[in-house]
Formats: sequence, C-alpha cells, structure tokens
Amino acid sequence: MSVFWNKRTANLTPYVPGEQPRDRKFIKLNTNENPYPPSPKVIEAIESVLAVTARNGANPLKGEKLRLYPDPLCADFRDAIAAAYGVKPAQVFPGNGSDEVLAFAFGAFFETASEANTHSILFPDITYSFYPVYADLWNIPYKTIPVGEDFFINLNDYSAGSGGVIIPNPNAPTGRALAASDLLALAGRLEQDNRVLVVDEAYAAFGAESLVPNIAEHPNMLTVHTLSKSASLAGLRVGFAIGNEKLIEGLFRVRDSFNSYTMDTLALAGGKAAVLDKAYYKEINQKVTATRDRTAIALKEMGFTVIPSKANFLFIRPPKTSGLELFQALREKGILVRHFNKPRIADYLRVSIGTGEDMDTFLTACRSMVKA
Amino acid sequence: MSVFWNKRTANLTPYVPGEQPRDRKFIKLNTNENPYPPSPKVIEAIESVLAVTARNGANPLKGEKLRLYPDPLCADFRDAIAAAYGVKPAQVFPGNGSDEVLAFAFGAFFETASEANTHSILFPDITYSFYPVYADLWNIPYKTIPVGEDFFINLNDYSAGSGGVIIPNPNAPTGRALAASDLLALAGRLEQDNRVLVVDEAYAAFGAESLVPNIAEHPNMLTVHTLSKSASLAGLRVGFAIGNEKLIEGLFRVRDSFNSYTMDTLALAGGKAAVLDKAYYKEINQKVTATRDRTAIALKEMGFTVIPSKANFLFIRPPKTSGLELFQALREKGILVRHFNKPRIADYLRVSIGTGEDMDTFLTACRSMVKA
Repeated sequence: MSVFWNKRTANLTPYVPGEQPRDRKFIKLNTNENPYPPSPKVIEAIESVLAVTARNGANPLKGEKLRLYPDPLCADFRDAIAAAYGVKPAQVFPGNGSDEVLAFAFGAFFETASEANTHSILFPDITYSFYPVYADLWNIPYKTIPVGEDFFINLNDYSAGSGGVIIPNPNAPTGRALAASDLLALAGRLEQDNRVLVVDEAYAAFGAESLVPNIAEHPNMLTVHTLSKSASLAGLRVGFAIGNEKLIEGLFRVRDSFNSYTMDTLALAGGKAAVLDKAYYKEINQKVTATRDRTAIALKEMGFTVIPSKANFLFIRPPKTSGLELFQALREKGILVRHFNKPRIADYLRVSIGTGEDMDTFLTACRSMVKA
Repeated sequence: MSVFWNKRTANLTPYVPGEQPRDRKFIKLNTNENPYPPSPKVIEAIESVLAVTARNGANPLKGEKLRLYPDPLCADFRDAIAAAYGVKPAQVFPGNGSDEVLAFAFGAFFETASEANTHSILFPDITYSFYPVYADLWNIPYKTIPVGEDFFINLNDYSAGSGGVIIPNPNAPTGRALAASDLLALAGRLEQDNRVLVVDEAYAAFGAESLVPNIAEHPNMLTVHTLSKSASLAGLRVGFAIGNEKLIEGLFRVRDSFNSYTMDTLALAGGKAAVLDKAYYKEINQKVTATRDRTAIALKEMGFTVIPSKANFLFIRPPKTSGLELFQALREKGILVRHFNKPRIADYLRVSIGTGEDMDTFLTACRSMVKA
C-alpha cells in the first residue's frame, strides 16, 4: 500500500501471467505459445520496414520509418484483416494483443457500479482469469455463472440477468468449445435487451467454430482475436476485434482516450503479413492439433482425466497425485506447465501443446510419476 | 451514438492526434517528430532479435524469439534506463509511449468523482490536450488553472486545492520551461498532503531541467518520459516513468489489470539500445535545438510573436494574419503544422523543428505570407 495510490489501485488484484523464465532452459508448456516460429513473411515484412533509409550527412541511416508515428487508424493492417476474414475494414479494431482489446471492450460496453442496478456483465466461474480483473479495473459489477460437470457451459444460463456477457470459445483454461449455433442463439436473445455479447476467440484457430462469418447478423456481437497463439507472435503484441461498425467505433473512442497509437510500426507490418499467410499457419496449426489429440489419448491411457479440447492446450487431472504435486514434479524435470490454485480447478493442470518432441518428453515424465 | 455503448463511451471526447498523411508528401512539422533517424544501434538491436532462428524441419526459420511472450517485467530495458539515468530499476516503469504511461498514472493516483470531494487533479488551462481526456476516461474530476501572460505558469497557483498536479516541463504546446527548483518546491508543498506531482518530461531533452536527479527527494514525484521525440522513435512506441518505488508499483498494479505485456520484444530491444546510445542522440538533438533557436530569431525578425521554447517545437503567432489562415496557406505549400482551435491559443501555431532545410523552406513560406 501507499498513501499515493487511489482507491482503485489499492483494491486491485492484478492478473498474474504465466512465468517467463529468464535463467534456466525449460520445456515451456505454461503460456500457450505456439511451438513453431512465425511465418518467414512476417520477418521479411518487419525487416523491410527497418530497411528504409534516410540521408544523415554522408551516411544513409536505416530505420527512417521509426522516427514517424504509426498510422493511428492502422489502415493497412485493418485492410489485410478485412481481406483475410471477408469483412469490412470498419468492422475491425486493432490492438496490442487481445488482452488490450478486451480491456477496451470492458471499458466501452459495460456500465460501472454507479450506473448499474445489479451486475453489468456475466461470465463463467471457470474461465480466463483476467475477466474479473478488467471488471474491477473499470469498477464494473459482475456475476459469475457456475460451469456444469466437466466444465460444460450451458448458454441458457446467460439469458436472464442484466448487462453483457463474455464467453471464450473455446473456453480457457478448459479448452471446451461451444457450437456456433448456440452462441448465435444467445446473441439473438441478448440483442432484444441491447446487451453486448463478447466472444473471445483467442484459441478458435485450433478447432472451434468462429463467429466471424456471422458478425453482420447481430449488431451486439463482438469477436476478439490474437496473433499470439495461432500466428506464433506472442512477442509482437498483435490482436484485433471483429464486429459491428458501432461496436468498433466504441472501442476506438475508448482507445483514443487512452493512447492513440497502441500498435507500433513493426507490429503493424508483421501483423499484416501474418494474417495474409494463411497457408503457413494452417500447416503449423494442423501439426499442433494432431499433437494435441495424440497427447490426449496417451494421457487417458495413463488414467488422466482429459477435458475435450479444441484449443492448443489440454486441461488434465492426474491419477494418484494432486495437480500441485505433478506441477512441482514436472518443474523439477525442466517442464513448465500452468497450475491455478483456485476452487474447482486446483486438481487440474493446463498443458500447452509443444512440438511432438516436447510432448514425448512430457508424456515420459508423466508416465514415471503415475507409475511411481 | 449506439445503444451498446456505456455511459463513459457516449460521453467521451477522444484526443485527436496530429494528422499522419498517407497520400501526399508533406514537410511534416505537426507532431513533434525528430527529423533525424534513430541510432543505428537501435536498428541493429531489433535486427539481432529477429535473427534468432529455430529449426523447423530442415529449414531454420528466423524470428523464433517472437513466438514467446516478452518479459512482463521488462527487466533488461529497465536495467538499461536505470544505468543511463542513475536510478534503480525498481524506480522505472516501462510503457507503450508516454501516452500510455500517463493513462496508467491517471488511473493509479487520482480519485474518481465518487471518492473525491471536489477535484482530484489540477493542470494548466493551456497544456497537453490529452490530460482532460484521461481524466474523463477514468471519471476523475479536474480543475484547470489559467496560465499567465505569454503562457507563463506560476507554480504557487497549484499549492491550494485537493488531489494531484500534472505539469509538463517544458509545457506543450507552448514550449515554456520551468525551473527545477520551483517544481521541487511545489513537490515539497504537495507532499505534506499526500498529493502526487506528475512532471511530464516528454520534451525535456531539448533544454529543460529534468527532475530525475531529484526523484529520491520526494516520494510523491513522478517523471514521465518518451523516446518518441528525443530518440526519434515515435514509430516504436516506447516510454517510461521514473519515480519513487511505491509510485512505480502503483503503475504496475494498474498495468497488470489492463495488459501484462504492453511493450513488444522488438520495442524492448530497440528502447534499450536507444537509452544507452547517449552520444548519438546528444549530437542530433543539439542540431535540433540550434535549428530551433535560429528559426525563432528569423520569425521574430518577420514580426512573429515567438514564445521562448525549450522543446523541439515553437509556438508562434503570425503578424497580419490569423493562425488558421497561416495554417491553411502553409498546408497548400506542402508544409504541415499544428493549429489548435481552442480559446486563448487559436491565433497561434505549433511548429515542430525539422532539419535545417525543412525550416528554411518553412521560413521562406512564412516570409512570402507576411509580405503579401
């Protein structure tokens, strides 16, 4: 605490991301990064921005483009997304990772406590743990809906109530996917009361049905995307939302009251190249999902509970040992996975899908623990 | 308007940055960019991040580092700032440009309307026009203090009142600088009532006295910095704050409730190289200030009012013509400057300092207008 913090700062419980180890070399299965490098076209695009030179006396110096502000409208990047996803540029909002896009969505669409009667947003009790943090940041009252057995989400539970809804598809950290038809039906029900539905599609590229083809059907529906996982670009900080033009305009209003340029010139160029190189990413993400599916089978054979996953991770409960014990034993063997010390999921581990070799090492480690 | 926006979004009046022209080639003196390219060491640092390869089957692919999240603590970048500025890493907060750092500072230190008696922050009536926007974003009641003749800021005006104070040194868009001793005296007065003083040093490298050497003296004093202007890196989005450890911790609490990784891996590497290459930037910024000073003399000789500037821009009032007329006439000649259609300053233009050649073209254009 500090006498200089305001009440918000004193009351916040910030989100804690997965560990990024700096010293020791781990097999890193804890933050859902893609095990394959980004498309070579992304690197070429960034290098070509850097290559632009300016004359400075006798010597031409590289990086001339970096002295200028980026395009605040991110027009080229949004045009590329529009072309790749079959939408209009005005239906695209660019951001510094989907985390930033989500922060702006919470700030734009859900009422603060002083304006709300009861709650302003609903989300599952087991979901991305950043959602309650965003709500607290903006002083938005929220209500959580318990997920059912095996973390199943029943969308009928979200029709009653007030305010908006946010649901990831597939959900995190469970990996369970919802049918697009069920989400569209919910969007229709919420639309009658001017309630916004945000569908967080961070992991949709690994097997869930995206709602992007349906965004014109519901003016209250926003889909949120990231290049961190499916495009191997967690280090470049690129995300975006696709939705109705008025929702996009609302996000720009909040962004432009916060920071006019949240994406730098290199991220804009790299992000553009990434969304346009569908062939490369289709290939690497098919490898990831194939590795996921064979890992799931192997874990089930060892007696693990494995939640059906459409993401680039598995949510698993070990036999004979607690989640925390397995987490610690794997860490000692140089394998980092994610453990959430929270009600209902403390016995589970979330394991990102690495290369085939990574997962063989992981499976061997699990096998020795389960036998012991 | 939209039925899906919350009350905040509907009521906001977002900041409008200076135009970034996409079609025509202008002499761009409207957004205070540095006319010289960034240090070659910045470009080398970014290229060396990109050069890291991974084996993907038979072909090693570049950009392997981008598939991983950046270090959320930004340790290497903060270590470099600490070394360059003679402070501790725990006294440094990293951000996506000083605009983002300021947005977090407003969110961390000043109370919202529901918690405040009257106003929570004071700033000059003529200053960076993003300040009232940040206040509205977070629902912070603010009070502006009129600047005196020739935009002089009397810091005694800021002692009374409640809440914090934010002052740029030098001020924008006027360029006028304050003495460090006067700001330190204000910090001491505010400290007695636990009031935070934010000093926005975005333009300090061009001649104002920085308070960084004094940050240990006042636990309520935060200085805010950007690499956009002084390090020619507007396109890379790098800023930072230096202040007491508890203030830095407050900024991290808000950031980590918004987006854990606001700086990408390339910006961290480039920013580190920039703060360490003092010699290069000293040289180019001395050229900028020399050009500024001779431009000011030439404008005064033509009958312009020129506010004394310690920034990389001049705030000027033309003789015989209005600010808006000169703005438009310059635009027709391919020279972009900034005009603010606001009370007290509508007759003025803010002119960024370009290369010597840029300013000769600008002065020739002004001369023809004043003669006409």
